[in-house]
Amino acid sequence: MNNLDQQLTFIMEIDKLKAVYRQTRVKSDNDRRENSAEHSWQIALSAMLLQEYAMAEINILRVVKMLLIHDIIEIDAGDLFAFAQDSNQKEQEVKELAACKRLFSILPINQKDEYKSLWLEFEECESSDSIFAKSIDRLLPLLINMRSEGGTWVEHKISKSQVLKRNSHLKELSPKLWSYVENEVDLAVKNSWLLNK
Amino acid sequence: MNNLDQQLTFIMEIDKLKAVYRQTRVKSDNDRRENSAEHSWQIALSAMLLQEYAMAEINILRVVKMLLIHDIIEIDAGDLFAFAQDSNQKEQEVKELAACKRLFSILPINQKDEYKSLWLEFEECESSDSIFAKSIDRLLPLLINMRSEGGTWVEHKISKSQVLKRNSHLKELSPKLWSYVENEVDLAVKNSWLLNK
Repeated sequence: MNNLDQQLTFIMEIDKLKAVYRQTRVKSDNDRRENSAEHSWQIALSAMLLQEYAMAEINILRVVKMLLIHDIIEIDAGDLFAFAQDSNQKEQEVKELAACKRLFSILPINQKDEYKSLWLEFEECESSDSIFAKSIDRLLPLLINMRSEGGTWVEHKISKSQVLKRNSHLKELSPKLWSYVENEVDLAVKNSWLLNK
Repeated sequence: MNNLDQQLTFIMEIDKLKAVYRQTRVKSDNDRRENSAEHSWQIALSAMLLQEYAMAEINILRVVKMLLIHDIIEIDAGDLFAFAQDSNQKEQEVKELAACKRLFSILPINQKDEYKSLWLEFEECESSDSIFAKSIDRLLPLLINMRSEGGTWVEHKISKSQVLKRNSHLKELSPKLWSYVENEVDLAVKNSWLLNK
């Protein structure tokens, strides 16, 4: 196959992300589950819009690239609920690494290398770009739950400390968004959408 | 409202794009209709992957931004089928301009101006960035129809010349993608997925 054939094969392969469903629900569409493709769209756009709150230098094109590709490994590995048990998360990591290898190998070698290393950078979450990307990926479910009377938090009996821990990347990189999260979480406890522990 | 409140309100308002359905179907998900949010994700990623085929200088971050926001006006205006009659298209333009005004006005003024003008640039389709963005937006339904035995082309009795006209932006900007489209369209005629006229 030439480069173009490989690229188009990849573009059609990742079409399957539209069939990977997450726990989050879409209020405007009869409360159906959200899929990972539309979620990826929303977080990429959100990162662009909230860029000014990153207190370190970030390359927004790299952030957006990471967010657009970070979920495609779910085509093979499925989506694991954010607050799943640790033992499940270890198993998931193995599946995701295999998926990363299979999927990005469809691309021409230079793009395979670029996207694979962007995905790994996102997972490792040590660079400013990846910390900002992951923060936005985690902020969106909070926004959605706050507008759906607690949404998946209520469904799965999630506690305040779990949500704060999950969003704690914001603390250093983006104090303004972190303080927003703290306020929202307090409000959620008041409304009994989160357990107070 | 402060900037952050405006931005978060916008991010939740555009959640509604997940409930705007297009003609195209999702093969991997029981042939349901595709929504405009997941479509926007796929074209933004495709533009990044196919960037090397643009024969003019393009700014890929601007292209990706355009693609991530270009459909949100459908939240108010709905999606019009690509091959709809001209009279419907005029009416649609009026609705879309009103939607553009309402939606981007939710954002802080500097972002409102930036995104509104990016959307207008995409619609006018005269700059290299917008021509490339629009080409990719139009290429994806072709890829999907070719892998679904003609898909919406068969459903709506579309002809070869209509598809070529719709993809003709590629001719100058991206001869390699244009020649790919010409070959695919010929194959579609052979398979009776497109009318030969």
